[in-house]
Amino acid sequence: MRTYIKELEEKKYTEIAGFITKIRDTKYMVFIMLKDITGEIQVSISKEEKPELIEKALECTTGSVIRLKGEMVLSEYVKNGGREFIPKEIVIESISAPSPIEESAEIDSRLDYRWVDLRTTKNTLIYKIQSTLIRAMREFMYQENFIEIHTPKMIATASESGSEVFEVKYFDRNAYLAQSPQFYKQMAMAAGLERIFEVGPVFRAEKSFTNRHSTEFTGFDIEFSYIDSYRDVMDMQERLLTYALKAVEEKYGKEIEETFGMKVIVPKDSFPRIKLAELYDEIEKRYGYTVEDDEKTDLTSEAEKLGCRYAMEEFGSEFLFVTDFKPDKRAFYHMRDEEGIPQGYDLLWRGVEITTGAQREHRYDILKKQAKEKGLEKDVEFYLEFFKYGCPPHGGFGLGVDRLTMLLLNLSSLKETEFLFRGPNRLTP
Amino acid sequence: MRTYIKELEEKKYTEIAGFITKIRDTKYMVFIMLKDITGEIQVSISKEEKPELIEKALECTTGSVIRLKGEMVLSEYVKNGGREFIPKEIVIESISAPSPIEESAEIDSRLDYRWVDLRTTKNTLIYKIQSTLIRAMREFMYQENFIEIHTPKMIATASESGSEVFEVKYFDRNAYLAQSPQFYKQMAMAAGLERIFEVGPVFRAEKSFTNRHSTEFTGFDIEFSYIDSYRDVMDMQERLLTYALKAVEEKYGKEIEETFGMKVIVPKDSFPRIKLAELYDEIEKRYGYTVEDDEKTDLTSEAEKLGCRYAMEEFGSEFLFVTDFKPDKRAFYHMRDEEGIPQGYDLLWRGVEITTGAQREHRYDILKKQAKEKGLEKDVEFYLEFFKYGCPPHGGFGLGVDRLTMLLLNLSSLKETEFLFRGPNRLTP
Repeated sequence: MRTYIKELEEKKYTEIAGFITKIRDTKYMVFIMLKDITGEIQVSISKEEKPELIEKALECTTGSVIRLKGEMVLSEYVKNGGREFIPKEIVIESISAPSPIEESAEIDSRLDYRWVDLRTTKNTLIYKIQSTLIRAMREFMYQENFIEIHTPKMIATASESGSEVFEVKYFDRNAYLAQSPQFYKQMAMAAGLERIFEVGPVFRAEKSFTNRHSTEFTGFDIEFSYIDSYRDVMDMQERLLTYALKAVEEKYGKEIEETFGMKVIVPKDSFPRIKLAELYDEIEKRYGYTVEDDEKTDLTSEAEKLGCRYAMEEFGSEFLFVTDFKPDKRAFYHMRDEEGIPQGYDLLWRGVEITTGAQREHRYDILKKQAKEKGLEKDVEFYLEFFKYGCPPHGGFGLGVDRLTMLLLNLSSLKETEFLFRGPNRLTP
Repeated sequence: MRTYIKELEEKKYTEIAGFITKIRDTKYMVFIMLKDITGEIQVSISKEEKPELIEKALECTTGSVIRLKGEMVLSEYVKNGGREFIPKEIVIESISAPSPIEESAEIDSRLDYRWVDLRTTKNTLIYKIQSTLIRAMREFMYQENFIEIHTPKMIATASESGSEVFEVKYFDRNAYLAQSPQFYKQMAMAAGLERIFEVGPVFRAEKSFTNRHSTEFTGFDIEFSYIDSYRDVMDMQERLLTYALKAVEEKYGKEIEETFGMKVIVPKDSFPRIKLAELYDEIEKRYGYTVEDDEKTDLTSEAEKLGCRYAMEEFGSEFLFVTDFKPDKRAFYHMRDEEGIPQGYDLLWRGVEITTGAQREHRYDILKKQAKEKGLEKDVEFYLEFFKYGCPPHGGFGLGVDRLTMLLLNLSSLKETEFLFRGPNRLTP
């Protein structure tokens, strides 16, 4: 059984294994830096004492994978906490060709060799953190009696808008890739499952080249029944994010600060909430930001940034719920009140919108009318059927896990957070 | 706050909500059977005492959703544990049209209205159990230091065999839907992530109409580095399934027995292991089953069934690992020993193959040779690249979550276990 490099005990004979990150051939010694998922250690081989190991060590290249048997000792000559590994055996598992990329290369070149790019301590850490984040999010949902479901990604009709949907050749007909599990998570409500969540891929055929768009990403979606208003949805999301950030902070707070220079801030109170029109008033008053009235029906990118600045200055909060959008900027399935105001919200975090949530319209006749208004009545015919045979009031939201990770770690783009980024010009590796 | 029907306390005023499963209008009383995710209760309304509630109750239909305020009382006149709910208020949330299907209808008709079909206690239970099963499987992986990743489902080249792959129109080119995360989970090994798992959709463009095939299903895939042989993979799978079955047994064992007539058997020992040729000998000797020699290079359906019978009779085990297949029946990426025997296995459970697992070939030259042998060298060119820059020895397996659930609950087909089944003729709802 091998031992993780981080867990090596002094002078205890054992096995370690990992990738070689550096080899140095000096007059009397060969030094190898060996890295596994937990850390790195210097391996020191004396030319005089271990000529047979030296031969093997010098066969190796940077990137090669080896296993070593031997023991860790503490040495005053070594950096890195003074640990070095003295091997008695070397097994070469895999020899690497010369590295195809530099660590300092641009992200697009690095993505071509993503499997090499991912080996850096920083990149490995991203996936450890993301795994912990999603684990905590799921754990919260389970505690709240949510059931995890898996909805189909191949669907018969182009959902919602009909644009931005990938077409699939499905035997002798066409299918489409789901843009979101929206319709099916609502179907689960009509099915009486009451509280469900899903973590799965989401597909968007958008030719967007911003740092926060990709054609495929991991969505975290929840939907739950018997709510009284969209405020219940906001409350749930607030508690979910607080729970998840707490878990990440406890496990990786220190490493995140060291590696990414970011503090993980666990919210202490509920997130401030403001109406869209009031937000525009506030940021005009405070920061002199103004746009034409017809742009004020939705959040501009700048308003997202300034909204977060306002939330921090006024409430000491990184999060801000914005409510009371105009119906023409919201999906047809958002419930509206008597005055026609959509019963939903956007959630801002660190200058960016991370969620749209809402209470959904569950009443068949009203829903059909709202679909018709947007000219979608025919496209969503199959979906409207879900509401004919009884459906509880319900609401929910969706989050992009990769975007969340990007903001959490202050990364420059989704290209850095997705295991394998997909964009209009990127389908490999 | 509403109370779950199962958790109602006697004479405590509260709110309940759910679907109406039955309405009975008698001379003096109206009775409603109301069902939520936890259970069902009779709601009793006296015509003399509550005429205003009677009016509302009689507006409702089976399938409608209502909320009630009132209290539960124990009554000697009532079945179902003697509990009945006496409402003081009724709120109608949603009126159902007459049900489009009968509970006794054939599965294919029921699937047309899956959201109504799912409301039965039995169907709801399936998803509670599946959610618990996957939760436990993930929990085990986390405990074993595995990281959860999300690999892309849209890929540039038709993977593995090239057949049975769905084609996607990807802007001005084609993409394909991943048949499995195989190549990418191995990429994660080359990336040094060491131990990963993924739960996600898997797409198969197969025109199969058996009870255990579908064009889209949920896969549970793991891959881990620094193994010594495929036996390490078998050990891991054994422990995973034992852990998961234990969790399901503890939480739902009784309900599964009552509802599905199946005992959840938690394995006590490690699973028996047998070579393919020996298995054919055993089942010929014991059960007189024999096939032509050229069929003996792989497991026939009948051999899967008899193999399980053998495992039960000889070892008291529901599981059986079968090893030592012939190379022509195994994927090119399975490692082979000096005699050319693939270093992998199939796992049988309850008469069906549920997993193929293996140590993978991580040495570039050998892997390339094996791909060439199967005429796949060009198709898998991008994949071969993953092994050029160092890669640890590794192995793993994949499981179909829906198939596992089907066998666990003795259901007749994947149509019963997938939230929304997808087959060559089924893309809706």
